[in-house]
Amino acid sequence: KKEYRIAVLPGDGIGPEIMQEAVKVLTLVGEREGVTFTCEEGRIGGIAIDTDGTPLPEETVKLAKQADAVLLGAVGGPKWDQNPGHLRPETGLLGIRKALGLFANIRPATMHSSLVEASTLKPEVVSGVDLIVVRELTGGIYFGEKKRYDGPNGEVAEDQCIYNEAEIERIIRVGFDIARKRQKRLVSVDKANVLESSRLWRKVAERVAADYPDVELSHQLVDSCAMQLVRAPKQFDVIVTENMFGDILSDQAAMLTGSIGMLSSASLAAGSFGLYEPVHGSAPDIAGKGIANPLATILSVAMMLRLSLGMDEAANAVENAVWSVLEAGHRTGDIASDRSKAIGTVEMGQLVRDEL
Amino acid sequence: KKEYRIAVLPGDGIGPEIMQEAVKVLTLVGEREGVTFTCEEGRIGGIAIDTDGTPLPEETVKLAKQADAVLLGAVGGPKWDQNPGHLRPETGLLGIRKALGLFANIRPATMHSSLVEASTLKPEVVSGVDLIVVRELTGGIYFGEKKRYDGPNGEVAEDQCIYNEAEIERIIRVGFDIARKRQKRLVSVDKANVLESSRLWRKVAERVAADYPDVELSHQLVDSCAMQLVRAPKQFDVIVTENMFGDILSDQAAMLTGSIGMLSSASLAAGSFGLYEPVHGSAPDIAGKGIANPLATILSVAMMLRLSLGMDEAANAVENAVWSVLEAGHRTGDIASDRSKAIGTVEMGQLVRDEL
Ligand SMILES: CC(C)[C@H](C(=O)O)[C@@H](O)C(=O)O
Ligand SMILES: CC(C)[C@H](C(=O)O)[C@@H](O)C(=O)O
Repeated sequence: KKEYRIAVLPGDGIGPEIMQEAVKVLTLVGEREGVTFTCEEGRIGGIAIDTDGTPLPEETVKLAKQADAVLLGAVGGPKWDQNPGHLRPETGLLGIRKALGLFANIRPATMHSSLVEASTLKPEVVSGVDLIVVRELTGGIYFGEKKRYDGPNGEVAEDQCIYNEAEIERIIRVGFDIARKRQKRLVSVDKANVLESSRLWRKVAERVAADYPDVELSHQLVDSCAMQLVRAPKQFDVIVTENMFGDILSDQAAMLTGSIGMLSSASLAAGSFGLYEPVHGSAPDIAGKGIANPLATILSVAMMLRLSLGMDEAANAVENAVWSVLEAGHRTGDIASDRSKAIGTVEMGQLVRDEL
Repeated sequence: KKEYRIAVLPGDGIGPEIMQEAVKVLTLVGEREGVTFTCEEGRIGGIAIDTDGTPLPEETVKLAKQADAVLLGAVGGPKWDQNPGHLRPETGLLGIRKALGLFANIRPATMHSSLVEASTLKPEVVSGVDLIVVRELTGGIYFGEKKRYDGPNGEVAEDQCIYNEAEIERIIRVGFDIARKRQKRLVSVDKANVLESSRLWRKVAERVAADYPDVELSHQLVDSCAMQLVRAPKQFDVIVTENMFGDILSDQAAMLTGSIGMLSSASLAAGSFGLYEPVHGSAPDIAGKGIANPLATILSVAMMLRLSLGMDEAANAVENAVWSVLEAGHRTGDIASDRSKAIGTVEMGQLVRDEL
């Protein structure tokens, strides 16, 4: 009997509630498919700061490294907002990306037909939107050298944005590989008219393109891409870009759908290892109320089944179960047009499992 | 009789056509107000590359420095797209910003009521949007040191993002000063959870806030701001941010209105000197056809009258003339819902002058 070890990191805020539903779905998938998922819990973010004095305990890194994949809830909350950098929840997030070599962040923004009304954009502009932002996640200005010193004009702060060809090539290849399985259109986003790192980025993208003659590569400047995402989001199939631009554009793209409570993401290392998490945050304001939407986390399970465990059919089954529940009209508060009819976290999880 | 010297830089593509209409409006304002505007033309961008072998001839910098304000059309076109960096039109743009010390880019995104339909967002989301992005324009990653060298993993490229307190303080003050004259709400945008330069930015913003107790300061992370601009753009009054984030967010904000052919911008130096230009580009595809929308350039004239020349009433008159022409239903092709009824560049310019 097949066995997979899954590191489960619920994190803060609504993290534990939504993770519980996701793990129940995973367990059910295991029973159906005859696979054992051994879920081992670890701490990250605020809870780890409180318990271990660091947002990313060594133990958690070890747990994750021994696992076949990682499921993450969400980190952060007002309690830790004023902490110094090394004691902030998001430092744990940045740390685990680096420690596990998770260089490829995959962020789909898909407009599900029954949720078109949730978007602030006109239905004809967003219905049918189905794009993926592939974001480089362990390089660029996020991990370059930082400096702070005194100068003649007061304090000076520096951040270094640095990329080498190998780092660029591997993420560009992820973009091409994903585009190849979809509509075969890859937009590489940079700021080549200003940045040296973008000029290298574009050069590498052009070189790698020779290996993917079946995929159409084009380039967009980041400012122009931010415009095009608003003007005509359906033009995009796969977008590949560096860390900072990807942070901005993937969030913008997510919000186009109007329902970020539905979106999940994967952060992949070389090989099949990956970390999976919902796009939304820890929502401290509604934590513990049992009203959070567990669907993005459940859809993260589907992504994990597909991308790390090679269980495509099970992944499809989970996704279809989610769409069926939505089509039947069930909604949590964040996506409900009539809030009085909204259901809770546990009930939503149960409905998805019933459908499975 | 008062006299002002205006440096007029039409640039490339539709630049000359739209500038012609703007200058005619300026001349008419001069006649009405008893002011002489001496307009002197200079070259920048592609035309300067072709004529002078550089996108920013010394002569143009001199002309601009001797003027009271600068009007710019647009630069760039496919002809120069493959040129090396120092021979690209946008290098002229970056150069003139630095040479003239234009550190404050003011980019209003205003949804005019008669154009609400042009937006891809729902009318209830965008009608009433009236925000200004204040972008730092001569610092940050745009002007930091750039490096390119060989390393063990192929070529390496570096861009340095650098800010000192004085640079941050002066742009934050511009943000506060503008907010003070409006709804008194300033959102400072940074990425303080990752970047050292953003942490300094936030610290300075907090310090300067003490001088503006009547203005409400809040902070947003850049990714979150990109989301909020899509989700609820009306929440914003004034946004102040650094160069790269401002490039992205101001373009995103502009596109929310759906009619970037209507938006103008100012780039200000210390004191009253400034450069004024439309937000849209040189649109080489429609250059020379007489169909370009001159309104953004005409509105740039209004911004110049107000911000550099202290002629508030004349500025209002120009803006009101533009709104009247729109309300009467006249449209150029880019903003027309029925393209067959679209009017040309010259005709639009004439209508605005008639209204004046
Ligand atoms: C919390 C923050 C450091 C993080 C990032 O910027 O990468 C977040 O915005 C994300 O996109 O996962
Ligand atoms: C052309 C380019 C260098 C420029 C910039 O990035 O500043 C443009 O996008 C702008 O916003 O004026």
